[in-house]
Amino acid sequence: MAPLIHTLDLAGTFVFALSGGLAAARIRLDPFGFAVVAIVTGLGGGTLRNLLLDLHPVTWMADPSYLLVCLAAAGITFAWARLLESRLLWLRIADALGLGLFAVAGTQVALAAGTHGGIAIMMGVTTAIVGGMIRDILCNEVPLVLQKEIYALAALLGAALYVGLDALGAATWLAAGVAFIACTGLRLAAIRWNLSLPPYRA
Amino acid sequence: MAPLIHTLDLAGTFVFALSGGLAAARIRLDPFGFAVVAIVTGLGGGTLRNLLLDLHPVTWMADPSYLLVCLAAAGITFAWARLLESRLLWLRIADALGLGLFAVAGTQVALAAGTHGGIAIMMGVTTAIVGGMIRDILCNEVPLVLQKEIYALAALLGAALYVGLDALGAATWLAAGVAFIACTGLRLAAIRWNLSLPPYRA
Amino acid sequence: MAPLIHTLDLAGTFVFALSGGLAAARIRLDPFGFAVVAIVTGLGGGTLRNLLLDLHPVTWMADPSYLLVCLAAAGITFAWARLLESRLLWLRIADALGLGLFAVAGTQVALAAGTHGGIAIMMGVTTAIVGGMIRDILCNEVPLVLQKEIYALAALLGAALYVGLDALGAATWLAAGVAFIACTGLRLAAIRWNLSLPPYRA
Repeated sequence: MAPLIHTLDLAGTFVFALSGGLAAARIRLDPFGFAVVAIVTGLGGGTLRNLLLDLHPVTWMADPSYLLVCLAAAGITFAWARLLESRLLWLRIADALGLGLFAVAGTQVALAAGTHGGIAIMMGVTTAIVGGMIRDILCNEVPLVLQKEIYALAALLGAALYVGLDALGAATWLAAGVAFIACTGLRLAAIRWNLSLPPYRA
Repeated sequence: MAPLIHTLDLAGTFVFALSGGLAAARIRLDPFGFAVVAIVTGLGGGTLRNLLLDLHPVTWMADPSYLLVCLAAAGITFAWARLLESRLLWLRIADALGLGLFAVAGTQVALAAGTHGGIAIMMGVTTAIVGGMIRDILCNEVPLVLQKEIYALAALLGAALYVGLDALGAATWLAAGVAFIACTGLRLAAIRWNLSLPPYRA
Repeated sequence: MAPLIHTLDLAGTFVFALSGGLAAARIRLDPFGFAVVAIVTGLGGGTLRNLLLDLHPVTWMADPSYLLVCLAAAGITFAWARLLESRLLWLRIADALGLGLFAVAGTQVALAAGTHGGIAIMMGVTTAIVGGMIRDILCNEVPLVLQKEIYALAALLGAALYVGLDALGAATWLAAGVAFIACTGLRLAAIRWNLSLPPYRA
């Protein structure tokens, strides 16, 4: 993995693990519960990406910093989550940051493995949404991806922008920066102003 | 994949994706929610089959028609599900068609990969039931496979008939036709007449 | 797999499948529902372990005794679970036995595949807790791993003890015995005396 992408992947793992720790705080788990939810949330998306692309060893099995980052996030949330005014809001903000970071990192990992651009977009979206999906199912919440506000669209936007800019020959840092800002920015705007697409009406 | 099996696999993906779209309609998601549930339901079973058999690339990563078929199903259900009198009934019918198509296709993919007949039956059943299981967990419904009416038995019947007829030297179209009709027919009959096995009594 | 580890892996599959059958009894499924839950619970942890380590064929696909053991457990619980005074208590006891057996077997399989000790511990814990997690999500229960009593800590203790004793040159039977007794013993003690770590307080 290129150093920049590795950093984004690790940062995405950390903020998703934070969102997992905040979910654990909401249902008042013990420290090991925090660790389990943080690890599953932080590593879930990238693990599925690696399995689907048949890329072995799975990233976190070759690089212990992924696990350490998850455990740090579990510790931080166990110690300090009570100081936050709204754990749900911060959970959603951490999730939004992870969404953008993983949309970029997941897409780039797939491109580097030689996949077609369309599949790389799917891998970016998968990496970005699966960890949070497992977190929400495990904690028995309605998955964020199935709630009203724009979510999967933001991940798709980030992944597609990255593939497009990369195809146009943009530098990695530029493509990654634009894609991250577009994805996380759209998602944060959706949280702030309740932006949503027209839902299905029966 | 042989052309007939490829067609059945793609058709199964389409009808399972339709069932996913109908599940999305029941919980009033936005268009991207429809796409997420349709894709996960349509591709879940075949993806797990490929991972278990270590068959790469995963089918839909080498053949974009799988994804397109899922998106088409999401669009169709978003546009027209409201015209159905009972979305739940149609969800179950689409699921029943997918069950038979995937029981056949999953079993044949495993046989073609050289697995033992017993394992091929397991792969057929897995392919047939996992997509719907993920759909129901995601949408917080009791999985159809855990409800009273005959379900896993129908998948098992289809997969076992296919392996048996194939071992007896039957043509693929014949084995596939008989197995599909038996599986989907039994499941539809179970829906129509509330057929069930004796449940556990405490 | 060494004969002793194979035996432990198979025994863990059996007791986890029993716990799955008992969960099926609690929600009054039919015989095929028992089989589905028993199989998924018994094979889930080891399957994920094999996929993560890229070890193929997945254990139960090369050795039919795993499936037979799950079906036997489904049959036994369907026939006799009603004779138990507390199905929930016995579910938790079977789960505790499986936890210790899989913590040992999962760790040893990873070590034999040449992974680093820290990753082997993660694989042991994963093998031990994932089957029960899927069982509880499928049956719509709060996963045992997220409940108050000590659970993940017991799996971690067993896996870490095994790696430590193995590194010190202990015989496999000794390392396996100590690790199993420590893990399952701690878990049973947690059930008996409601032992728990200090939970998060908002």
